[in-house]
Amino acid sequence: MQGRRRKFWGWGWEDEGPSEAQCAKIAALLAARFNLGKIDVHHPPRLDELDLRPPRPPIPSSLATLCSTEAYDRAGHTYGKSFRDVVRAYHRDFSNPPDIVAFPRKESDVMALLDWCTDHRVGAIPYGGGSSVVGGVEPPAGDRHAGSVSIDLSHLGRVLEVDRVSRAARIEAGALGPALEEQLRPHGYTLRHFPQSFEFSSLGGWIATRSGGHFASLYTHIDDFVESLRVITPSGTIESRRLPGSGAGPSPDRLFIGSEGILGIITEAWMRLQDRPTFRNSTSVTFASFFDAANAVRAISQAGLYPSNCRLLDPGEALTSGAGNGSESVLLLAFESADHSLDAWMARALECCRDRGGNVPEGAGRTRTDSGGARDGAAGAWRQSFLGAPYLRDALVGMGMITETFETAITWERFEEFHRAVMAAAEEAVQRICGQGSVTCRFTHVYPDGPAPYYSVIAPSRHGSQIEQWTEIKSAVSETLLAHGGTITHHHAVGRDHRPWYDRQRPPGFAEALAAAKRTLDPGGILNPGVLIDG
Amino acid sequence: MQGRRRKFWGWGWEDEGPSEAQCAKIAALLAARFNLGKIDVHHPPRLDELDLRPPRPPIPSSLATLCSTEAYDRAGHTYGKSFRDVVRAYHRDFSNPPDIVAFPRKESDVMALLDWCTDHRVGAIPYGGGSSVVGGVEPPAGDRHAGSVSIDLSHLGRVLEVDRVSRAARIEAGALGPALEEQLRPHGYTLRHFPQSFEFSSLGGWIATRSGGHFASLYTHIDDFVESLRVITPSGTIESRRLPGSGAGPSPDRLFIGSEGILGIITEAWMRLQDRPTFRNSTSVTFASFFDAANAVRAISQAGLYPSNCRLLDPGEALTSGAGNGSESVLLLAFESADHSLDAWMARALECCRDRGGNVPEGAGRTRTDSGGARDGAAGAWRQSFLGAPYLRDALVGMGMITETFETAITWERFEEFHRAVMAAAEEAVQRICGQGSVTCRFTHVYPDGPAPYYSVIAPSRHGSQIEQWTEIKSAVSETLLAHGGTITHHHAVGRDHRPWYDRQRPPGFAEALAAAKRTLDPGGILNPGVLIDG
Repeated sequence: MQGRRRKFWGWGWEDEGPSEAQCAKIAALLAARFNLGKIDVHHPPRLDELDLRPPRPPIPSSLATLCSTEAYDRAGHTYGKSFRDVVRAYHRDFSNPPDIVAFPRKESDVMALLDWCTDHRVGAIPYGGGSSVVGGVEPPAGDRHAGSVSIDLSHLGRVLEVDRVSRAARIEAGALGPALEEQLRPHGYTLRHFPQSFEFSSLGGWIATRSGGHFASLYTHIDDFVESLRVITPSGTIESRRLPGSGAGPSPDRLFIGSEGILGIITEAWMRLQDRPTFRNSTSVTFASFFDAANAVRAISQAGLYPSNCRLLDPGEALTSGAGNGSESVLLLAFESADHSLDAWMARALECCRDRGGNVPEGAGRTRTDSGGARDGAAGAWRQSFLGAPYLRDALVGMGMITETFETAITWERFEEFHRAVMAAAEEAVQRICGQGSVTCRFTHVYPDGPAPYYSVIAPSRHGSQIEQWTEIKSAVSETLLAHGGTITHHHAVGRDHRPWYDRQRPPGFAEALAAAKRTLDPGGILNPGVLIDG
Repeated sequence: MQGRRRKFWGWGWEDEGPSEAQCAKIAALLAARFNLGKIDVHHPPRLDELDLRPPRPPIPSSLATLCSTEAYDRAGHTYGKSFRDVVRAYHRDFSNPPDIVAFPRKESDVMALLDWCTDHRVGAIPYGGGSSVVGGVEPPAGDRHAGSVSIDLSHLGRVLEVDRVSRAARIEAGALGPALEEQLRPHGYTLRHFPQSFEFSSLGGWIATRSGGHFASLYTHIDDFVESLRVITPSGTIESRRLPGSGAGPSPDRLFIGSEGILGIITEAWMRLQDRPTFRNSTSVTFASFFDAANAVRAISQAGLYPSNCRLLDPGEALTSGAGNGSESVLLLAFESADHSLDAWMARALECCRDRGGNVPEGAGRTRTDSGGARDGAAGAWRQSFLGAPYLRDALVGMGMITETFETAITWERFEEFHRAVMAAAEEAVQRICGQGSVTCRFTHVYPDGPAPYYSVIAPSRHGSQIEQWTEIKSAVSETLLAHGGTITHHHAVGRDHRPWYDRQRPPGFAEALAAAKRTLDPGGILNPGVLIDG
């Protein structure tokens, strides 16, 4: 272990996040905002405070060089990064760590690990950046397995080939966002997939969870950038053909995209790339009415303009992120291109805004070719707040706050009723369970047939009841999402935590087909047990 | 049977297609072109010439009102519309007709039919418009089944609901193109999916085969317009949730999109619609070099402009379709919108053409809002030739010609070598097998990472050896497509005819997963046996 090290208990680098002084300031703000007394700031766990269960299955000598049973590794692979994960870490609850953390260095290592897991009934948990917020990288509870291995792909992080003609690259699945982009930069390319977890999530994880990225419209999920895949399953290796498009049967790739590690371990993918944008046209438009703003977004999304950013923030969200004053909704609108000026695109989008009561700033709509184009004004403030959020979230959890997000999608014709119902359910739950709290909404992605709204909840919890109170809120809002026709997840995946709702959302016949596919590819039932489906 | 009736033996309406006089003229042109003597024009079969095998399984009385054993129905459902199908029809070979043609009127009829088929080991062949060119609607040969029923969905052809806010409609799967568009028109919408088979292909067929439609870029396959599906399987009904986007596990819809009737019968879909375009900007650009033209297309497809038409015709293709003089390649380029003028889009696309040696007509690039915008000049000539082609093809088959198309997709960096190899293989095969013939190429769809080239072959055959000679050509070119990294089909599907190559293209592990899904949903193995996978 040299250089910077990641926290084993929460988000990011050990040496990053709000300082003690900043935390004190935040605590004071929270105390004032929620009219609380002094806020106790809990201390994150130290490794020497943990008493991890001894590893169960013995590591075979042939795999020993790949495997670690170090406390730092095991504790760091016990959880993802959900609210519940961080609370458990603050509580020093590491009662179900993986027995072993394996770091394969090549595909044959992955195969050998899966063979060993199959032979010894050991659960195998694919691990990319560990940023799951849905219990997707957690060892299974119970004793159906003889133990569990977290298979960490961080050593498979190279860009192996770049095809400059087709604009594609063959990339190992363990590449985390920054390293991946760094390797593409000299070629003038970018994958341009920036989920909030970007710094600590991997290509394979993005594909396995249908991650949502930079583009607010058109190419919303990672799915669209996958040209072909290599997947190691306990039954063998599956490699699809590099094709720009095909109609030969159901897409093989689409079976594995979103499979969350239950069918195999993605080791490589050919990914479609973007030229690095040089033209940027961005602005922010304010609206007195949130629903008028939503209608403007609908008009833009149905106009065939494909903005790269079309994030509508409700007044509370705009205030929190520094993009607004709390009285108006703010639409962050941007177009980007490596090829052409975007004046015509933005001009028409701004017309859509003006037609629906949007207040367009004077001088908006000019395409810039300097690098500051994307970093000014409300958009820049939003970006900073976006990237720092996971560090801040961990600090808030340590101050006893409940912070959770609900992200979903719904068709436009149901949106108003849906939004009122979700806001009401979340506000009611927060009031009932915590006595107070705030609920805000933004759109992360938009489609011609509907938006992807993202709800953020923050509320003070009772000491010692943080998880129970969170569970009640999570459940109340999730029920509402489902009952009103939304999806339980637009881009955070299902994991174990969304199962109660996913199981009802997903057509039962499809669940059976998926289970049959899993039994064929993973006859020992070792891969990420309990995620997506039973068994 | 009242009104217009469809040919039971070939494409389209009985009263449409080239007249006898036109056929004589075409025959004379062919004779001159290929330096043949007098061409025998074969006569299509008459129903009274056929001696169909008596139906085998007895129809249960509960299903009798849905079922026909009329010769017209059985002969009309014996084949799709491939070259081989039409030759067999000309030869009066209807040796393996379906025993029964069923016309369900509601979903419960479909369920009852599948139950009966499962109970009696009868093959069930979903039938939409019958336009398959890959043996996708043909009863299985052999005696593994006690008979076969062609399940014709033509009575399930209604648009059931239109959602004007989200721009979507719930449509029954049996709706053929024209009736579907007619029902959407009063609402101001269009599905805007126009495969060449448009007049005689159905929504369910498009979805089951991943049909390719109007848009040359971006929304190329029907896949992108599917918001949700209803599918009747022998194990039950599967209905996905209407969502504009989702990341909840592998997409249930994507398992059925492209499943070619082996997993269930699609009965309904919520489809994303388009506003009817009112702005059109189209032109044609000529290039002295086909590869320069291809590079211009690559630049356009990587620029994020998303033309609705970007069909590159090689010199021979341009000549045949009346869009060029045979010495140059012609790029048919168009942008369409219901929302905005497209001058900026076209201006940039034309720059991409000029930069690569394209000869742009003077005055090109102006957006029109009159209805003639799409119907003038080379684009208009192309459209007429496109829609009339299937009728003409049948006439050519009757004149002893071999006509076949090979459609595929390949990434850009391999395109030149791929194209040379496919052209060489096709020309060599045509020379060797027929002594002469022509091979031409166009792009039907284009992607940022590669084109979808479409090769057309026409050659005179030896009398009586039409199918054998076709088989040799088909096989030689298909081998080359596969060996050089292409897909065996970009949008014509797999059926039975593409199996030899699809089976090698598709990853084996995926085949096993798909077979496992099929065994779960169709435990009796009755649905379209032999299509896509064995058993």
